[in-house]
Amino acid sequence: MVTIKEIADRLGVSISTVSKGLNGASDISDELKQIVLDTAVEMGYSTKRSRSEKYRKVAIFVENMEYNDIDDFGYDIVLGFKQNAFRQKFEVDVIPVTPALQQQERYDTYLLKNQYCGAFLIGFALHDEWMKQLETTTMPTVLLDNFIPENPTVGYVGTDSNEGIDMAVKYLHNLGHTNIAFLNGSLHSKVSDDRQTAFENSMKKCGLVPQKNLMAHGFYVADSAKYHVPGFLSNGATAIICGNDLIASGVINECKMRGFRIPEDISVIGFDDIPIASTTEPTLSTIRQERNELGRCALVALLSLINHIPISITLLRPQLIIRDSSGCAPVEKK
Amino acid sequence: MVTIKEIADRLGVSISTVSKGLNGASDISDELKQIVLDTAVEMGYSTKRSRSEKYRKVAIFVENMEYNDIDDFGYDIVLGFKQNAFRQKFEVDVIPVTPALQQQERYDTYLLKNQYCGAFLIGFALHDEWMKQLETTTMPTVLLDNFIPENPTVGYVGTDSNEGIDMAVKYLHNLGHTNIAFLNGSLHSKVSDDRQTAFENSMKKCGLVPQKNLMAHGFYVADSAKYHVPGFLSNGATAIICGNDLIASGVINECKMRGFRIPEDISVIGFDDIPIASTTEPTLSTIRQERNELGRCALVALLSLINHIPISITLLRPQLIIRDSSGCAPVEKK
Repeated sequence: MVTIKEIADRLGVSISTVSKGLNGASDISDELKQIVLDTAVEMGYSTKRSRSEKYRKVAIFVENMEYNDIDDFGYDIVLGFKQNAFRQKFEVDVIPVTPALQQQERYDTYLLKNQYCGAFLIGFALHDEWMKQLETTTMPTVLLDNFIPENPTVGYVGTDSNEGIDMAVKYLHNLGHTNIAFLNGSLHSKVSDDRQTAFENSMKKCGLVPQKNLMAHGFYVADSAKYHVPGFLSNGATAIICGNDLIASGVINECKMRGFRIPEDISVIGFDDIPIASTTEPTLSTIRQERNELGRCALVALLSLINHIPISITLLRPQLIIRDSSGCAPVEKK
Repeated sequence: MVTIKEIADRLGVSISTVSKGLNGASDISDELKQIVLDTAVEMGYSTKRSRSEKYRKVAIFVENMEYNDIDDFGYDIVLGFKQNAFRQKFEVDVIPVTPALQQQERYDTYLLKNQYCGAFLIGFALHDEWMKQLETTTMPTVLLDNFIPENPTVGYVGTDSNEGIDMAVKYLHNLGHTNIAFLNGSLHSKVSDDRQTAFENSMKKCGLVPQKNLMAHGFYVADSAKYHVPGFLSNGATAIICGNDLIASGVINECKMRGFRIPEDISVIGFDDIPIASTTEPTLSTIRQERNELGRCALVALLSLINHIPISITLLRPQLIIRDSSGCAPVEKK
């Protein structure tokens, strides 16, 4: 287990400062207190406070999303949620969920039996069993990237896909691109649907025509590229927007393997800004999601629902991060 | 000025309990503490704490919205914002704004000069001068019912109009109504636009045709009814959804004056659920907005922006409140 001394060493402060931060003493600044708490959570420190009666329990249920490694999409989301929960005196369990568990045990029952007063669900797909049950759940629940209509105990937290895709299309259009392709993630996913609609609308707003042979759904993995990139290239794409950074990394490799230069021949844009985006060659331009903040906002939304505030949708701003994988459209070949 | 004794009397607790609540003592419950603080704010109590250095200042700018009287739409929004601000140690000034002031003084300048670290804007229209300036402001700002694209220091708080209108149309359709009219509020307003789109989509989802001669924009006042209701009636409307409760109260009167019975001949649905909704004759079915919570959420969003969390959109759930102004569609006249 992590000790107070280890936290002090990592932050370069004294043991007594860490102790003050953990105990909410009034003679250190609020900023420092928050840094101590955030670092303690990040390092997995478990205090006596967190085992006391006053802490209430919430769960993060994870299906189909990596979160253990700092490079994983889910890592910062889980961390941000836990950091904020710790300040608000909530204990958090992170529970991987299989389709089998969802068949076996009702969602509400699972929460009640395990004394969770609410939950945050990440990585669930529209057809998951628990997603259907959420239409009538009475347990405070927040979903990442999923929306349940008309149930006031369920909230949705995500990034504004519409604005993100819009910024990317406008940026590429301003660089002279007209044949812009979109390699989306999986079907049956709310974000994929939202981004598909956003892409088609953004193209039209720029006076461009979304072309059927330049749009495809793959999966949220790098491998998707090899099935769709060859078609995009032969259909004249000069830019490819991708459903996430993993897909984009596959697209970069596929293009290079086929002798296309990035960005001289093809511009590539990702979505998410996970750590690999700075290590692809060339580095990846991408639509950034603030994942730590998504986790923090999910906790705020969950607390609101626990307190009977019917918060429904919380969206964060995306940010377009320009790196080396995008540039001017190539001059047309004669 | 309100005294501690007056607060104690109103709550039926001792003076020392109120004093403990105001000073954050640890020997009274969190719930009671919050009730004391909320009541103190509602009664206009001003503590020494609120005059101390530690309090930071935020502003609520109000244009074109009533908020002084408990029956006013803005009353609970302003109150909820102030109640939450008080807990978070923010001082709040409520400032009515005219178009002239907006011409005379830049938004950012006004905030800086008066040492506000952020603001909440209510009642502004799309064409207001300050709304244009918000596209590039660097001051943390939250708008009620208005959205500024691509500026990460500006957030939007509102009620999900889409879901609200959807619930009303589905409810009326289930009661046998097919000729459903929509008397919207003012043009050049984001909520009016959202609700118009929502109405047309909801009708189509129910397999109904939104008819041009059953849709109109008025203003957000009761008087709107007299210009549009006669047309709706002669075009066969059996139900009228209204942009707000004031319009709906006008619609009820206009229908009754013309010999139409509510709800036997015409069902009327409002939007907002302000206090008058329970006093119209018959009482008004309406799409409720949680206005106190909207104010509280606006403060949460503003604090997020002040702390550089790029929160963009926060929407609360609407609730369909069924009272006596709506019922089954009349049996068709032969």
